[in-house]
Amino acid sequence: MTQKRPRAIIFDVFGSVVDWRTSLIDELTEFGKTRNIVADWTALVDAWRAEYVPSMKRVAADELPWMTLDELHRASLEKLVAEQKIEGLNESDLEYMTLGWHRLRPWSDSVAGLTRLKSRYIISPLSNGNVSLLVNMAKSANLPWDLILGSDVFGYFKPAPETYLGAARLLGLEPGEVMMAAAHNADLKAAKALGLMTAFFVRATEYGPLQVYDLEPRGDWDYIARDIEDLADKLGV
Amino acid sequence: MTQKRPRAIIFDVFGSVVDWRTSLIDELTEFGKTRNIVADWTALVDAWRAEYVPSMKRVAADELPWMTLDELHRASLEKLVAEQKIEGLNESDLEYMTLGWHRLRPWSDSVAGLTRLKSRYIISPLSNGNVSLLVNMAKSANLPWDLILGSDVFGYFKPAPETYLGAARLLGLEPGEVMMAAAHNADLKAAKALGLMTAFFVRATEYGPLQVYDLEPRGDWDYIARDIEDLADKLGV
Repeated sequence: MTQKRPRAIIFDVFGSVVDWRTSLIDELTEFGKTRNIVADWTALVDAWRAEYVPSMKRVAADELPWMTLDELHRASLEKLVAEQKIEGLNESDLEYMTLGWHRLRPWSDSVAGLTRLKSRYIISPLSNGNVSLLVNMAKSANLPWDLILGSDVFGYFKPAPETYLGAARLLGLEPGEVMMAAAHNADLKAAKALGLMTAFFVRATEYGPLQVYDLEPRGDWDYIARDIEDLADKLGV
Repeated sequence: MTQKRPRAIIFDVFGSVVDWRTSLIDELTEFGKTRNIVADWTALVDAWRAEYVPSMKRVAADELPWMTLDELHRASLEKLVAEQKIEGLNESDLEYMTLGWHRLRPWSDSVAGLTRLKSRYIISPLSNGNVSLLVNMAKSANLPWDLILGSDVFGYFKPAPETYLGAARLLGLEPGEVMMAAAHNADLKAAKALGLMTAFFVRATEYGPLQVYDLEPRGDWDYIARDIEDLADKLGV
């Protein structure tokens, strides 16, 4: 029996396609040396990511007006720089650091896997990142997206239904013809509830050596793969 | 003196990047033979395109609810099939014909020119086509867009300001950092009025041998080129 296949595959990006943690730690460590700024860059990066979901929830709850992930990243950074007493950063430094999220490196299988998938399927990010972040990332990391779907296209962050269903609408497809692919069970759960297909793969070191979440599939996902190359294998390309 | 250069270039598509007229006439002529349908396909295609602007204006004037260009194309086709007394078309034929707009062929310089421009600039369509039309076209015609901006991202058709300014917003750029590139003076005039940069190139046979419009630049455009390859030359890539 051949398993049902999607027409389009939409990918979570941060953690699923790119390795935000190692990318940012490496870049900021280098930056700190160059600029002579002393900080625990690993602690900053982990704390910065920890602000991610709460900051989007404040927008979703209307405690904050709509703003892009770039703007949320910048606000979180300023708060953490103060909390962690990192000194000597000027405006240009804060801008450079925030745009580090545009320069994240892909996992080693991402470009090859996406390139294979693109030969038969429509591939797009469906990310909480803004379009400009995702475009800049695609150009620097050679991610071969067919199109770019960022949260500012919809004015909502995942897991709002407007994002998953908005993607299907813009693709001219039924939700069941679109597959959400992610290393995060919660993202897939939200997509599946709206009728999308789902694909899970593990990124066991996304959160570093002590990661405890998303080490295995926690749902009845349509495809379970080791990584994006393995997903391409399973999808016959 | 080096001329100012944009960060991103957004392209008009129908007529500017792809040759809608010859593509559709060829495809429908072949279709008519295969399906044994008799019609003046050239007349149908020219009449179909003639419905394009008026149909969008009816949406802009709220005489019609928002709908995609696919939906407008389908409605115009049904009207013209009746008017031109083309007989024997079933639902599947009408669907196939409408989706012909997804399969338009590029002008001979388009893919090479866009590929060169992509090496240094962000390139996107800014088209009245819907995203799914533009994605399918990109895949079939090998158009190497970085992202896809269709009218249904904004809920407006050009020349509404929401399209040009919406593109700049999603790109995270000032209007003056974005260049509209088109073979249509009216498109550039609307973009320039909002502060975008502009590039014009001629498509002298877009409307067939009797074309009378857009045979030359009619405005103070930033770049004037023979075609997209020549535009890449002038932009230093």
